[in-house]
Amino acid sequence: MTKIDLRPALAKMLPYAPGEQPPPGKFIKLNTNENPYPPAPAVVSALQEAATGPLNRYPDPMANAFRRAAADALGLPGPEWVLAGNGSDDILTILVRGFVGEQEKLRLPYPSYILYRTLADIQAANWEQIHFLDGWHLPTHFTNADDDLRLVFLPNPNSPSGTVVAPEQISEIASALPCPLVVDEAYADFADSNCLDLVQKHDNLLVTRTFSKAYGLAGIRFGFLVAQPALINRLASIKDSYNCDYLSIVAATAAISQQDWLTEVVAKLKQTRQRMEQRLTEMDFHVTPSQANFVWAQHPQGQHQELYDFLKKNQILVRYMDFPDWGDGIRISVGTDQQIDACMMMIERFFQ
Amino acid sequence: MTKIDLRPALAKMLPYAPGEQPPPGKFIKLNTNENPYPPAPAVVSALQEAATGPLNRYPDPMANAFRRAAADALGLPGPEWVLAGNGSDDILTILVRGFVGEQEKLRLPYPSYILYRTLADIQAANWEQIHFLDGWHLPTHFTNADDDLRLVFLPNPNSPSGTVVAPEQISEIASALPCPLVVDEAYADFADSNCLDLVQKHDNLLVTRTFSKAYGLAGIRFGFLVAQPALINRLASIKDSYNCDYLSIVAATAAISQQDWLTEVVAKLKQTRQRMEQRLTEMDFHVTPSQANFVWAQHPQGQHQELYDFLKKNQILVRYMDFPDWGDGIRISVGTDQQIDACMMMIERFFQ
Repeated sequence: MTKIDLRPALAKMLPYAPGEQPPPGKFIKLNTNENPYPPAPAVVSALQEAATGPLNRYPDPMANAFRRAAADALGLPGPEWVLAGNGSDDILTILVRGFVGEQEKLRLPYPSYILYRTLADIQAANWEQIHFLDGWHLPTHFTNADDDLRLVFLPNPNSPSGTVVAPEQISEIASALPCPLVVDEAYADFADSNCLDLVQKHDNLLVTRTFSKAYGLAGIRFGFLVAQPALINRLASIKDSYNCDYLSIVAATAAISQQDWLTEVVAKLKQTRQRMEQRLTEMDFHVTPSQANFVWAQHPQGQHQELYDFLKKNQILVRYMDFPDWGDGIRISVGTDQQIDACMMMIERFFQ
Repeated sequence: MTKIDLRPALAKMLPYAPGEQPPPGKFIKLNTNENPYPPAPAVVSALQEAATGPLNRYPDPMANAFRRAAADALGLPGPEWVLAGNGSDDILTILVRGFVGEQEKLRLPYPSYILYRTLADIQAANWEQIHFLDGWHLPTHFTNADDDLRLVFLPNPNSPSGTVVAPEQISEIASALPCPLVVDEAYADFADSNCLDLVQKHDNLLVTRTFSKAYGLAGIRFGFLVAQPALINRLASIKDSYNCDYLSIVAATAAISQQDWLTEVVAKLKQTRQRMEQRLTEMDFHVTPSQANFVWAQHPQGQHQELYDFLKKNQILVRYMDFPDWGDGIRISVGTDQQIDACMMMIERFFQ
């Protein structure tokens, strides 16, 4: 061992590879499920004002202004049900660090968000993947109470599928599990249901949310956790003291108060999603009905990797995803109508 | 154990208590070593422009614009020697997670920055405090090569003392240690020396920096690590993918290019520091000569806690610090001349 080796447990881990982030302007970017529209105008003006604010002072460690606004906007019992994070990735990290020790286990469905595995690896913990059944249902052993199980993740809507497990079933899963169940609702703003109400019923059901998708604020890094106050307090003690900066708190506080804007932009994106699903179906893709801002599509001829390469060569970035023991496909984020039309035209050309 | 207990190792930890952050305007705030002056005008205008930028897109995961600017401004061999973080606290967290496993050990001098212990606790790791000798020198056993030692922190300048260990001695310490030595240079912009050059000489010497102090940007949360490129790459694989947001990258990139502004504001703060040291000495305090933007003062009559309370009642916040087995005192951040005059006047009144 040299003086500067990382912990042996980390030496072999595969780092999480986020979607490519090329410089702006070069590509039609449909690979990381960002909102193609800018954030609400109220957010931009709040930020312009904040640029002359007290930047030389540390921000509020608990982001209380945001917590109050979030409780109001989402109808939560109070601000003490909210923990703010530097993106929901920060919240996920706090949860893994809080609950899962070395050699202990977290569980996730498969295929889903690969980052959960990376977080386990960084913690020198173990992870267990439970395969979805046909139709993106969860098998009963998803709730097995293994001795070393400390945390379960359930992205809902899931990625890459965009599918949703019904809240009633999630309530049953929370009751059956011996540990916290984290429902990762990064895409819930696009779905027909969510689990916010369930948090009051189950002290082990935790919901995470993000501003990176529907709110159009991936650039500011802000996410939050909704859970019962006793747990929020305990988790607050292991986060970085000042995990959220002053400007992102201002932006998120302004954004969550713009629920009418949100409803409008989500409606627009859902229309484009429907248009994309229809076009892909016409081109013989198997399209999983999505409740998120992306669509998972598999073509009977395969060639997904080739399609990805072809699109990239033509300045369109989508996500090629290959899940070992399961299959591959293309995940396309919902862009503007114009962007999706351009993408669909290019896919058509690929198959000609 | 209930379903929602944190890891047993975390249940007993004492959370790190950052300095109080009251709402702006109520206090003369001299307790968390912020810069009393606003950041460089170029930073504010860069942020105002960025408010209409691509906030809906994820930021550059590696903050390359900043890395290039930092390498230029600091004369580093290249951008690949820099890792950006969400405050230097984020960098410290990455380092502890990267190097120290459960039951393994990190070392810090005492008294110094208490957060290192908290980071060890969250990791379920051990920590060992080595007492400074008189005159804030390090004993030779600071470099003992214990079997379980994985990481050593050395804040330089140190807090609460504001004292500096000379680069020549730090070079010897790095050579002697069996593990990485992190020189936390949060306050180095105020000091007469720093260890940036040593990073090229020692692959186990790492330097952390922050924008929260001299740059007047505590609100944006930005810090960075300088280390050899191979190590930077490995550490990048365990950070949050998008740990730094778009706006803070813009602000830090603009700020680090303003070295003339920095020189000026640091000179101004050093003058105020000198004025404060003189006044405190005149009031019979023992004042440790500081190379940071704060002063550590102990009065022969003690009563530090009472002095802190008195000042707080009079709308002046300083830091009362009590280090078990060592002693207590008052740490006062360097504010504006006017703020320091007000504080000194009130201290005078306390002793009358």
